[in-house]
Amino acid sequence: MFISFEGIDGSGKSTQIALLQDYLSAQGHQVHIFREPGGTEISERIRSILLDAKYDVNAVTELLLFSSARSQLISERVIPLLEKGEVVILDRFYDSTVAYQGFGRESVPLDQIHQINEIASHGYVPDLTFYLKLSIEESIRRREHMEEDRMEKAGKEFFERVIQGFEFLAEKEKRFKIIDAKQGKEAIHEHIVAEVRTKLNMF
Amino acid sequence: MFISFEGIDGSGKSTQIALLQDYLSAQGHQVHIFREPGGTEISERIRSILLDAKYDVNAVTELLLFSSARSQLISERVIPLLEKGEVVILDRFYDSTVAYQGFGRESVPLDQIHQINEIASHGYVPDLTFYLKLSIEESIRRREHMEEDRMEKAGKEFFERVIQGFEFLAEKEKRFKIIDAKQGKEAIHEHIVAEVRTKLNMF
Repeated sequence: MFISFEGIDGSGKSTQIALLQDYLSAQGHQVHIFREPGGTEISERIRSILLDAKYDVNAVTELLLFSSARSQLISERVIPLLEKGEVVILDRFYDSTVAYQGFGRESVPLDQIHQINEIASHGYVPDLTFYLKLSIEESIRRREHMEEDRMEKAGKEFFERVIQGFEFLAEKEKRFKIIDAKQGKEAIHEHIVAEVRTKLNMF
Repeated sequence: MFISFEGIDGSGKSTQIALLQDYLSAQGHQVHIFREPGGTEISERIRSILLDAKYDVNAVTELLLFSSARSQLISERVIPLLEKGEVVILDRFYDSTVAYQGFGRESVPLDQIHQINEIASHGYVPDLTFYLKLSIEESIRRREHMEEDRMEKAGKEFFERVIQGFEFLAEKEKRFKIIDAKQGKEAIHEHIVAEVRTKLNMF
């Protein structure tokens, strides 16, 4: 089973991923979590270029670098694990590319992003994608005391477009499950578990 | 004017680029040379990942990393120089991606490579591409005493397919000028200068 978590920073992805891992592990599943961009030695090197605030990374370059890191993660780690029947949970996947590089940066046409996403993911599609929906005001409030990296410095209008991107995907993709991220973490976890159980029963 | 040089290692690209730079500079042109992948700080960091022999880089990852480095070089350096009316010479460009990642690695369909090339080059196409044509035997003979990087360790069948890729492009693309790289360097230089002069007269 292949699950991805999406949402702007501060939406609680890490917390929910940890809770879901505990739940699935207790059920006897082998669960692997990867953070995008990252998860392999090559992908971590690419991540460090992407998050380095000193660079003026062109929007197309950024798109291709995220996709490079993704391609290596999927080919080197995710595909072998899925083929063994284990559970893979991704903290961000190519939907973030649609939202951030497509809607956020507005510089690469969406059809090109979709093509690159398909190439970089080696054709693999998540069974479930949890979109932890949070307003930009709430995200800012939650991250008040944290230092910002290059991606986070992009400004409020940027994040408004990113949220539009996630909404667009949530309407278009059946695998998207919208979760109100303002709820308490236990309520969110229960919602997620219910969706995962439904999906597991279908296998 | 935008010129690229293509050909397998040992074909004399660097020598010919230096001679052409001297010629064009003497004519009063501002000439800039970039080596792919590289030419910007970000692109050099990507280059070091690509040429690191310790990694098992997936073929799709490799394609996307070369394209990332290219996108940054074109946007950060090449486009501003061309817009100032200066001459840019590239030691390899996206035709190498068709030959090496398309024909050589055989793992990404050609139409996908063309799409990514178009995205990564921001739509810029060389006015002239010099293909320094050399047999694989001659290339091996010329590089006998050099240490090999990860790309060069790929074996003889790989390089035979790479050569097929360049031949395919030479037939398809009008901007391709085929140069017999077994000739003496002065003869090759004269051939190249003649083509450049013809092109300059057309501007």
